[in-house]
Amino acid sequence: MPTYATRLNDRVQALGTPALVGLDPRWDQLPAELTQNRVSPSPEQAADGFRQFCTEIINIAAPLVPAVKPQVAFFEQLGPPGLQALHDVMGYARHQGLLVIADAKRGDIGSTAQGYADAWLDGDSRQAAFPADAVTVNPYLGDDTLRPFVETAVNRNAGIYVLVRTSNPGASTFQDRRTDGVAVFEAVADTVQQLNQNHRGSEQWGPVGAVVGATWPDELAALRCRMPNTPFLIPGYGSQGGKAADVAAAFGSSGSGALVNSSRAINFAWRRAEYRDRFTEENWREAVLDAVKQMINDLASLP
Amino acid sequence: MPTYATRLNDRVQALGTPALVGLDPRWDQLPAELTQNRVSPSPEQAADGFRQFCTEIINIAAPLVPAVKPQVAFFEQLGPPGLQALHDVMGYARHQGLLVIADAKRGDIGSTAQGYADAWLDGDSRQAAFPADAVTVNPYLGDDTLRPFVETAVNRNAGIYVLVRTSNPGASTFQDRRTDGVAVFEAVADTVQQLNQNHRGSEQWGPVGAVVGATWPDELAALRCRMPNTPFLIPGYGSQGGKAADVAAAFGSSGSGALVNSSRAINFAWRRAEYRDRFTEENWREAVLDAVKQMINDLASLP
Repeated sequence: MPTYATRLNDRVQALGTPALVGLDPRWDQLPAELTQNRVSPSPEQAADGFRQFCTEIINIAAPLVPAVKPQVAFFEQLGPPGLQALHDVMGYARHQGLLVIADAKRGDIGSTAQGYADAWLDGDSRQAAFPADAVTVNPYLGDDTLRPFVETAVNRNAGIYVLVRTSNPGASTFQDRRTDGVAVFEAVADTVQQLNQNHRGSEQWGPVGAVVGATWPDELAALRCRMPNTPFLIPGYGSQGGKAADVAAAFGSSGSGALVNSSRAINFAWRRAEYRDRFTEENWREAVLDAVKQMINDLASLP
Repeated sequence: MPTYATRLNDRVQALGTPALVGLDPRWDQLPAELTQNRVSPSPEQAADGFRQFCTEIINIAAPLVPAVKPQVAFFEQLGPPGLQALHDVMGYARHQGLLVIADAKRGDIGSTAQGYADAWLDGDSRQAAFPADAVTVNPYLGDDTLRPFVETAVNRNAGIYVLVRTSNPGASTFQDRRTDGVAVFEAVADTVQQLNQNHRGSEQWGPVGAVVGATWPDELAALRCRMPNTPFLIPGYGSQGGKAADVAAAFGSSGSGALVNSSRAINFAWRRAEYRDRFTEENWREAVLDAVKQMINDLASLP
């Protein structure tokens, strides 16, 4: 069976875009036809709304983009019914041919890290509780805590994306602290690249990706040089302010090696100021489709 | 309503111990009466086994210790049925009078961090999907990402424990990198202490705790000086090698200010080499009770 990097690259080449659509359901943003104007839904009602909303986004996205990225927090907020909805949404996305990257930002030590790896890294194994092709991982606990994730990813032809440089304003607090000129996020990057050197065999891209925010374009270019065999996942495009030119440096010479994510600007497109003249809440699906196509066009302008 | 720190301290004083019992169910370690010797249980069967096992541990621990710490990864590994079992176990523990610290090590940015805070920080609000009094949080993403957790904790009389110095061998990889002599984990500690200064009012202990591994006793003492108003959660005691003398420095002058956690050495006490002569698998409950009492006695020797 092909590795995660190969399956991802095949999808990116086939569809001709590195656009990644986030699934970020928020009750107070959903169209009224799904919420039925309920202000305080039960967890089961909210989970049903999330399931239906994400299913519709998936139906729109599946013919156009290689992958979706459900944000686990919004489902977890609803408790067990929300996590059942997440499970169902992930399965549905794969059934529609999409790769699924679970944005869970998990991390723990030893056998506990193995528990999270087992929970999320499905790949082609059909062994994980949540059917993801890849999962995001937090490196703070140390290099030994990445190992169970990497080994499980390799065994199951799945992938991980390690948080290297996040897109938020406060990312610099701890990530930018320098030792002999090397920032913490650069040390994490070096660890990630080394893991790929150990596990990529003769492939260009290894199983260990890096999350690098579009909101730091200079660092993005430097990090591409630092991690030449590392697939990037780039959040911060769209609502958070990143533009296509900001992410250009992330791509390898063949146009592969990075996914660019947009969540809110697609999920709730009909609420965007520039869309309000063209779309109403009743035709929110058309707004979502337009936003996906706009993102694909925008990214197609990359060299 | 009293703050988390006050409720915790009241329980610690009433029971006379800072012992924290972890709930770390692992299928291949459970007594055969719960697994019925199934090697490959369905997620529902495994979740039922975890629920029953943790309920029994809670029954043993509730009269003796102030709090329990369920490890979320082991439940998440089972998918939605596991998370339902976790939810039930947490509710049962609180019903038995225990405080519940969810060891979830969550962390994300902005509104996503708020999603995790809403999911886990119940406190006295009865608003969270998972009924925890406190949750563990990963600081890598930056100080701005801690804020939704802190504000929600304050509003709901709940608490958080920020990972400062973890107990694993590789903790030093990124946590120990120094800038002008200050390590990353010390910078995290300073942020935590500052948050407590902002939010503790006139109380000795603030809402923002710190996870500091028992496996680094020298740093534990230095971190106590660095965070004088910060409740500690100390993993690494017991199975990971930490002893009572190693954690003595974590306590304030009144004996308050820290919880010491043991998970495996209590959960699976009857499997410990030194217990095998005294207990069989059939009387695993007695072994668990003995291990809890032994830990309490050991910690009672602290000055």
